[in-house]
Amino acid sequence: MTLAAARRRIRIDLAYDGTDFHGWQSQLGGRTVQDVLERTLGRLHGRASITVRAAGRTDAGAHARGQVVDAVVHTRLDDGALAHALGRLLPADIRPLAVRTVAEAFHARRDALSKTYRYRLDRSPAGDPFLSRYALHYPHALDTAVLRECLALLVGRRDWSGFTDSACTVRDRRRHLVAARFDELSATEAWFSFTADGFLTRMARNLVGTLLEVGAEGAAAGGAARIARILERADRTLAGPAAPARGLVLEHVAYGD
Amino acid sequence: MTLAAARRRIRIDLAYDGTDFHGWQSQLGGRTVQDVLERTLGRLHGRASITVRAAGRTDAGAHARGQVVDAVVHTRLDDGALAHALGRLLPADIRPLAVRTVAEAFHARRDALSKTYRYRLDRSPAGDPFLSRYALHYPHALDTAVLRECLALLVGRRDWSGFTDSACTVRDRRRHLVAARFDELSATEAWFSFTADGFLTRMARNLVGTLLEVGAEGAAAGGAARIARILERADRTLAGPAAPARGLVLEHVAYGD
Repeated sequence: MTLAAARRRIRIDLAYDGTDFHGWQSQLGGRTVQDVLERTLGRLHGRASITVRAAGRTDAGAHARGQVVDAVVHTRLDDGALAHALGRLLPADIRPLAVRTVAEAFHARRDALSKTYRYRLDRSPAGDPFLSRYALHYPHALDTAVLRECLALLVGRRDWSGFTDSACTVRDRRRHLVAARFDELSATEAWFSFTADGFLTRMARNLVGTLLEVGAEGAAAGGAARIARILERADRTLAGPAAPARGLVLEHVAYGD
Repeated sequence: MTLAAARRRIRIDLAYDGTDFHGWQSQLGGRTVQDVLERTLGRLHGRASITVRAAGRTDAGAHARGQVVDAVVHTRLDDGALAHALGRLLPADIRPLAVRTVAEAFHARRDALSKTYRYRLDRSPAGDPFLSRYALHYPHALDTAVLRECLALLVGRRDWSGFTDSACTVRDRRRHLVAARFDELSATEAWFSFTADGFLTRMARNLVGTLLEVGAEGAAAGGAARIARILERADRTLAGPAAPARGLVLEHVAYGD
């Protein structure tokens, strides 16, 4: 429990309900996950804040079950005691799942091999009030055969410019989407899942928004051809609107070991 | 879809997330489920509001998956169209599950044969941020053998004065508790369930609060004897504190047919 106070790098696995946050990234005048976490780590050091780096910068209203961040700390608390202290100090909508000491070189974003985002649909007729923060209520018919045909087309290493937006500032927009699924767990619960070595701004939400349009139109509307065209022309204007953030969860980040 | 506008009594089955409500019952200056529902029904009639009666008056912060209410309406809309209209007009945290025309004599509270309340515990070490509105985070050890012994003692027709509080205004405090269970659905998800022909004010929450104390103390502390004493003496001061409302759900109301 009490070690000599030494500088070390830690990895923190986090879950959060993003509803009441203005997203991950620090900003002036909004409650963000990064700001709350940095201030809380700062309190353990008698400082204003400690800088953290996240694997994925989730949007305002989007959630995480497996966000990974790293930070340099200088404390006598061992990993278990640090996790316990964070659990006590953080609000109920951010929960530390694990704290572990990592190599000084560890970088939560750059070292990530892949990330998995999931998107939940509430398929109940009236909408489940317990899911209004965590799913898109979508009771309309969906052609799952068309959806799965489109999902298969998406998998691969491609330029995703057609599924990002003007907020995306990176130049190289090629990413490798290694898995894309649509699973119906019950008559009312359905999930999209996407695993890639990286995601562009709004990419997951634009994929879901477009897939819902295509799935609602059905096979006759040529949805698969539309998806192929968006990918080929890398043209955002051909895609559907972004699905609302509330259905989106950063589920898992995978690393080398 | 369009019938002649006729006076009729309807039953509405409702689910709601109680977090952002000051409970079921109408009050001045607070957002209550009853007020929101009455105003919404009123909008369908071009009136200020329509009076509704509920099977159970849930506390502020408590939820419902199967609340039942009745009301007299005067509209051309048939049951399906009325359900659809309510679904459009009600906020996302109140959802109409079904609307059906019932006999004029139907009374949601008086005709109820039994109600089932459930109470959710989040047993995860750090607390699940997606459950902070819907469960009590209770990671501490519980002696489930003692819990089940106590639950078995509770079942029966008894005076529940020991498990209500000063807000309870009814004189006859005998109720028949027909089932009391504790189920661990996974390593992190556990539920108390109580079915009775009626519940006194705070009864379910006081039962849970007391059972958690008894379960945490373990067999050596004589928890079963304490429960027996509270029942026998009908003495509220012997019971534990009320568990927080957020874990409580009105799950089901049973009627004769």
